[in-house]
Amino acid sequence: MIAIPQRVLMGPGPSDVSPRVLEALGRQTIGHLDPVFLQLMDDIRTKMRQVFRTHNEMTLAVSGTGSAGMETLFVNLVEPGEKVLVCVNGVFGQRMTDVAQRCGADVETIEKPFGQVFDQNEVIAAVDRIRPKAVAIVHAETSTGAHQPVDKLGEAIHERGALLLLDCVTSLGGLPVEIDHWGIDAAYSGTQKCLSCPPGLSPVTLSPRAVQRLEARTRKVQSWYLDLSMVRQYWGQERFYHHTAPINMLYGLHEALAIALEEGLEKRFSRHRQAHEHLKTGLRDMGITYVSQEGHHLPMLNAVKIPPGVDDLKVRGRLLDDYGIEIGGGLGNFKGKAWRIGLMGHGATKRNAEMLLSALREILKA
Amino acid sequence: MIAIPQRVLMGPGPSDVSPRVLEALGRQTIGHLDPVFLQLMDDIRTKMRQVFRTHNEMTLAVSGTGSAGMETLFVNLVEPGEKVLVCVNGVFGQRMTDVAQRCGADVETIEKPFGQVFDQNEVIAAVDRIRPKAVAIVHAETSTGAHQPVDKLGEAIHERGALLLLDCVTSLGGLPVEIDHWGIDAAYSGTQKCLSCPPGLSPVTLSPRAVQRLEARTRKVQSWYLDLSMVRQYWGQERFYHHTAPINMLYGLHEALAIALEEGLEKRFSRHRQAHEHLKTGLRDMGITYVSQEGHHLPMLNAVKIPPGVDDLKVRGRLLDDYGIEIGGGLGNFKGKAWRIGLMGHGATKRNAEMLLSALREILKA
Repeated sequence: MIAIPQRVLMGPGPSDVSPRVLEALGRQTIGHLDPVFLQLMDDIRTKMRQVFRTHNEMTLAVSGTGSAGMETLFVNLVEPGEKVLVCVNGVFGQRMTDVAQRCGADVETIEKPFGQVFDQNEVIAAVDRIRPKAVAIVHAETSTGAHQPVDKLGEAIHERGALLLLDCVTSLGGLPVEIDHWGIDAAYSGTQKCLSCPPGLSPVTLSPRAVQRLEARTRKVQSWYLDLSMVRQYWGQERFYHHTAPINMLYGLHEALAIALEEGLEKRFSRHRQAHEHLKTGLRDMGITYVSQEGHHLPMLNAVKIPPGVDDLKVRGRLLDDYGIEIGGGLGNFKGKAWRIGLMGHGATKRNAEMLLSALREILKA
Repeated sequence: MIAIPQRVLMGPGPSDVSPRVLEALGRQTIGHLDPVFLQLMDDIRTKMRQVFRTHNEMTLAVSGTGSAGMETLFVNLVEPGEKVLVCVNGVFGQRMTDVAQRCGADVETIEKPFGQVFDQNEVIAAVDRIRPKAVAIVHAETSTGAHQPVDKLGEAIHERGALLLLDCVTSLGGLPVEIDHWGIDAAYSGTQKCLSCPPGLSPVTLSPRAVQRLEARTRKVQSWYLDLSMVRQYWGQERFYHHTAPINMLYGLHEALAIALEEGLEKRFSRHRQAHEHLKTGLRDMGITYVSQEGHHLPMLNAVKIPPGVDDLKVRGRLLDDYGIEIGGGLGNFKGKAWRIGLMGHGATKRNAEMLLSALREILKA
């Protein structure tokens, strides 16, 4: 085994994983139809519903990373030729466009410069104009650090006959995600951000309205692996074998969800905010500013401008080599222009924020 | 954390995982672009090539279970409207048919009753008749325990302008899989069978001929998540971010591959055969016979007829509850008619075979 170095993960994810989750991952593997494992799955579903703040029966973990969760929503809820509206203001909006097109959707987009957010009325106006069957939007854009408000969309979009699809990969567990209250019809997340579990699973939830859409499909879902009409029969009481569940990863997710709920979601959100404020104040004192729109900074993903004259790779290399701290580079339009500093889940602490600030001060003064 | 009971996994997979692999799984998570992790990925590729017995540059682990590996081959190597020949003699051949159809392929099948294998000349004759662009066959049918010879297919299929796709989910690491020598163009496996790693990843390899086919595609791969034209740029020297790799699962796979290669593949195959012979002799003495064709029994997956008058669920329940031993029930046509007894990877020992025989003798005499 190659020696794994000590790191503090302050990039865009994966985030630092709690020793309790690591211990759970290393438990003995048991069968995917073992009664004990099935009970664990039920408990995972219950806990996921609490974290998503939903009563949705169809809440489960897709056996792939967050991008597999994204694809799951589009392959199941969109049929070829159907109109889909995607709101694009970063890499993950772009990715949703690509994924939806590969499903044969007739995709229309509304766009904002990277870092900006949409006014919710603009989105509703676009729905009026385009009349899509589904609207997809990113809650927490990992490429820009922008926090998109989505609380006013659900009812308006439902009145217009469409489903509302939400990417909450980076927000879940670090910011309120109110699936039922906001009227979200389908959402996907990842495990390696504010849930502080290693990457490999995607928590997904579908409203009864979305399930209806799935059941009314006229043709098979193009992905066998991600076909929720079959996957649901394994997670549900039928327990039909579909594919072999990633047992040990699910041990890890179970423990990560338990930790989040033991702490309490509100307390957890407030911890993320406090760590973020501490970091932001320290960065401001160093003259470092955010790339995302003022008033819409994500607490868990701080995307900031690389100061003029500073060598991106050199600074990140020194952080990693000399301090064992990982931060992320820019993505898409921000490649080479931004750093992405994560304060996620287990790692969302003032201690981490302060540690990074100290290291950056040292490196940048040199 | 729900208490995980002690089990001996002797079903169709997952198989028992070595403590070394469990320990690796629980190592600290690091970033998917961390230089140390990238080095680990390179080492995983080298080791996978050894286990697959191939020089194929494009050898990598898909971020999903074996079924995701299956889908990866079809979405990447088949375009809508293309003819595909699938050899069906069990559930996994049926699954390949379904997956290929969802890719828009014009699928033709040749079929054998569950448990029988194809004569390779029959397959070649079907290729002559059907003229497909790809031929797909299962090396080790997990639903029937049949061992399909595939050593004579490669050259004949290439001469006829088609690619040869192989499912070696259950054989890899327990039986010779000779990717280069047999002329296999694309193969997928799983981690939870004879590699004795938990489920969650699918080792995949593509020949240069298959890569050419991928590069000559006229339209995008329908799955974004499984699109090898992008995935390869993360596993390759470009290191382009695609999706976040399942870091800890890859720690586990690395360790599992290391264990297999330390033991030596030939020795490992012979251990599987010996455990299998021991089990078979013991079962014969009890009057229990195989459902698969004589001369084609898989060593790692022993599918046997449930003796007349014996209650399937009761016996498997007692094995699990009283002895902590998991065996599998029948799948597809064999549901309620067969047991599937795994002797895979770490668990392929005469000790396990004997332990199961003793327990079965006790239970069946009651």
